[in-house]
Order: sequence, then C-alpha cells, then structure tokens
Amino acid sequence: MVAAGSAGAERPIGIFDSGVGGLTVVRAIEELLPQEHLVYFGDTARAPYGPRSVQEVRRFAFEIMDLMAGHDVKMLVIACNAMTAAAYEEARDRYGVPVIGVIEPAVHSAVRATHNGKIGVLGTPVTIGSGEYQRALAATGRGVEVFCQPCPAFVELVEAGDLFSEELIGLAEGYLAPLMAADVDTLILGCTHYPLLKGVLHWVTKGDLELISSAEAVARDVYARLVSEGLLRRVAELGTRRFMVSGDPGQFRAVGSRFLPELREVEAVPWR
Amino acid sequence: MVAAGSAGAERPIGIFDSGVGGLTVVRAIEELLPQEHLVYFGDTARAPYGPRSVQEVRRFAFEIMDLMAGHDVKMLVIACNAMTAAAYEEARDRYGVPVIGVIEPAVHSAVRATHNGKIGVLGTPVTIGSGEYQRALAATGRGVEVFCQPCPAFVELVEAGDLFSEELIGLAEGYLAPLMAADVDTLILGCTHYPLLKGVLHWVTKGDLELISSAEAVARDVYARLVSEGLLRRVAELGTRRFMVSGDPGQFRAVGSRFLPELREVEAVPWR
Repeated sequence: MVAAGSAGAERPIGIFDSGVGGLTVVRAIEELLPQEHLVYFGDTARAPYGPRSVQEVRRFAFEIMDLMAGHDVKMLVIACNAMTAAAYEEARDRYGVPVIGVIEPAVHSAVRATHNGKIGVLGTPVTIGSGEYQRALAATGRGVEVFCQPCPAFVELVEAGDLFSEELIGLAEGYLAPLMAADVDTLILGCTHYPLLKGVLHWVTKGDLELISSAEAVARDVYARLVSEGLLRRVAELGTRRFMVSGDPGQFRAVGSRFLPELREVEAVPWR
Repeated sequence: MVAAGSAGAERPIGIFDSGVGGLTVVRAIEELLPQEHLVYFGDTARAPYGPRSVQEVRRFAFEIMDLMAGHDVKMLVIACNAMTAAAYEEARDRYGVPVIGVIEPAVHSAVRATHNGKIGVLGTPVTIGSGEYQRALAATGRGVEVFCQPCPAFVELVEAGDLFSEELIGLAEGYLAPLMAADVDTLILGCTHYPLLKGVLHWVTKGDLELISSAEAVARDVYARLVSEGLLRRVAELGTRRFMVSGDPGQFRAVGSRFLPELREVEAVPWR
C-alpha cells in the first residue's frame, strides 16, 4: 500500500479557463513547479464567457470542475476571472481538494506592494463590472483606494499577437491615463491575458508602477499550498502536460502558442 | 532601399550567459516579446565562471559579444551576473547597439519596491563577493540598507531539478534567516538560476517579501529600450530562436529544458 501523501502528490494539478488566457497561469506554475503533472481545460466551444450570465458561468465552472475531478486532480486552479468570481467560494468546500482562484492571490500581492494605498485594476468590462476585485480589496481591511479601468480592446489584440503596435500602445496610454492621474502606484493585471502586456504597461507607466500579475501570484500560492498540504511532487523528472479544449484544438494551439511556447498536443473533449 | 528602422528591427536580440541560467532571461523576454528573433549563446565549455578572475571573465564576455556582433544583433543582453559586473560599462560604448545587463534593472525595481529601505540580495558567493549589487544599490542615492547573502548550494540543486526537497527548503530557511532577522522587505534574486526558486522563497518568507527577479526586470527594460530606440519588431508572427553553446549541446538541452520548456535544437559552436 502506498502512503497517502505520496499517492496524493502524484496526481495532476487541474487548471482551467474559458479559453487560452489560463495558459499564462500554466506558464507561471510550471516555472516554479516543472515536476508537477498538469491537466488544462479550455472551454473554447463556449468562450468567451463575457456575454454570459453569472448563473451560466457558475454552471459551466462546476461542469468543468466535475470533469477535472474525473482526472483525479489534487488541486483545482480556476485560471479565469469570471469563473473565480462566480464559483470560487462554493467550489472550496465541494471537491475535497484545495481550490485556488485568480483574484485573492493578486489582491494580497497588491496590498503588500502599495506604498500610498492607491491600487489600480485593469480588467475586461465584465470583470470590472462584477465588482469582485473591489470587494476583495475592501475585504483585506487595509483601507486601500481602488481605481478600476475596463480595457475592452486588450484581449482581442493579445490573441491576434499584437503586443507592440502603435495602436496598442495608444490604447494602453488611454486606459492608464486616469489611473496615473489618480496617482496609483500598484496595478493589478486582472485578466489572464495581461501578463503578456507587462512590457507595454511598463513602458507606458515609465516603470513607475508595481505590476501585479495574477498568474505569478497564483503560481506562488499553488507552491505554498502544495507544501502545506503535503501534496508537493518531490521528484526531479519533468511532469506531464495534458491540454484539452471543448472547441477546435488547432485554433487553440495556434493562438495558445503565444501564451505557452511549448504548447504542442491539444485534445478535443467536446461537451456531450 | 529599406528604411533603417525597419531593417534594424528585423535583427535578432543577442542574449548570453556562461551556461543555462540566462534561459530564465530568454523566458521572460519571450513572454513580453514573442515576435522578436532571439539568439542565445551559453559558454558551457568554460563554465562555471565562478572560479575565474575578473580579467578572464571580462575577456570571455568580449569574445562572446564579438561572436554575437557577427550575428548582426540589434541589442546585447548580458544575462549573467559575473559578465555584467566585469564588462557592462565598457560594452555599452563598444558595439553601437544597446546593451542591457542583469544588475541595474533589478536594482531599480528593488529600490522602487521597498517600503522600509532594507533590501536583501541573494547570489552566488562570487556575485556577492564582487560587491556589484552593493555598489549599484548605493549608486541609486536612495540610502537603502543592503543585506547580502551568498547561497553556495542553490545553483547545483536547481540544475539537478530540485525545486522542492526538504534539503532545499531547509537551505533556503538558513540563507534567509539573517535577512528576515534584519527585517528586509524586498529580496533581489541576484542569480539567473533563482527565478525558478520563487516558489520556495515565497513559501519560506510566508509571502511577506517582495521578490525581484532580475530576469523579469531585464525583460521589461528590453521592451522599453526597443521602443525608445525604434527597434521593436512590429510583426505578429512568432520570432525565431537560435541556441548555441561552446560545450555539449545534449547536456545543455537536458538541463536547459527545466529553464525553458520549449528548448529543442541546440547548436555546438566550439571556440577555435
């Protein structure tokens, strides 16, 4: 009989998103934990979730987590702002494994980083509209001032491979102007696509702001949680990677390779 | 005739190190700049540089930069602490292209991040012994207190794929204890191997310290410098990657794939 700890540690970490954005979270996790087995699911057949209701997003999140549970994951990482907002609290008690969302880790990093207590949040219109970052920042009890900025054009440009155009830089300047006028000193990148924009955002803010990537904050929390739960895979060999999507694998691979350069095999797992 | 700016932008960025560590810099650069062509050189036949004199390291650095110049690079990134310390100042005027080292970007990030003005630096014994971080931090004129900690055992463990053992965690606790007793709130990871240790360091410091990765700080500066010099490649297609080593390509690939998961083809370019 294998000791429970070791058997548990061999199981994969389940990471999921509506599409390719969660691959920035995969990238950050595998930098710190290359030996872990990872299973990823992108619900590309039903993406984007933006126009969906919270109830619908919540239902999708639990469908995906049920699927992940079928892969015997030892931890669930909700690498999607919409699903974290809609389902994180409830999911924490439901699967008997640790669940990590994208909002809390970034919020804690930002509250620690700020000097003047003025924090900016960039996100999709849906994420900003949900008020989840505002609530999570308020819940820290640190009395920070929060300035939110929806960035409707970023996701499409990033997925098209544009991290460099004059149009993108101009858009970033426009989005950031009110935050800089408000004197924020810390900026939460509240969308899993935005880690790829750190170069642009650093340039536009002249390097004066602390940029908080939710992907990296999540990865550090994943590491800490695996250690504290006795679930860390302590083996030097690289872990396996498995990528599944509900939509077209070829399209996912084409766009996703900008987010995760080693992305190769992608399986189609359509919803019945 | 092609406009100078566009012809310049098509040239690759040259990145080099004594070995595999600089691949963390490649990883950070390609996250922000996937469309850039990159050329990497690892001087594995002569690594490690630790036991070498400053004069020797300086000579090696210029040999490598001459080689890079032969590949018509538009920018040089010295992804190595020893070579940055030995050759950065002189290299800046010598090649007619922007030169970026690993020390300044991290130092500027750290000085901006610290709240209490107490900054810790982790590095190899040689890097800490060189005093370059101490000098660069003092040169900012911000009056920060600097606490340096040589970490002799980290590089070997990281290259062996150990990011998780009890031994590693115990070592990290030992290295960090004096820095935490000194109340540092910001920690410079002053070795290109250390970004892979962010999980361990975050765990050991209970998430209370700001971790400054030189790799990521360099990548942001590379982006900014390309924009300001009109050298950014503004094309959506992914750039090419070329990896060269002076020693055994197979060994470099085996160890390097932990640092850069998509690493595949590595060319042998032995010194004559």
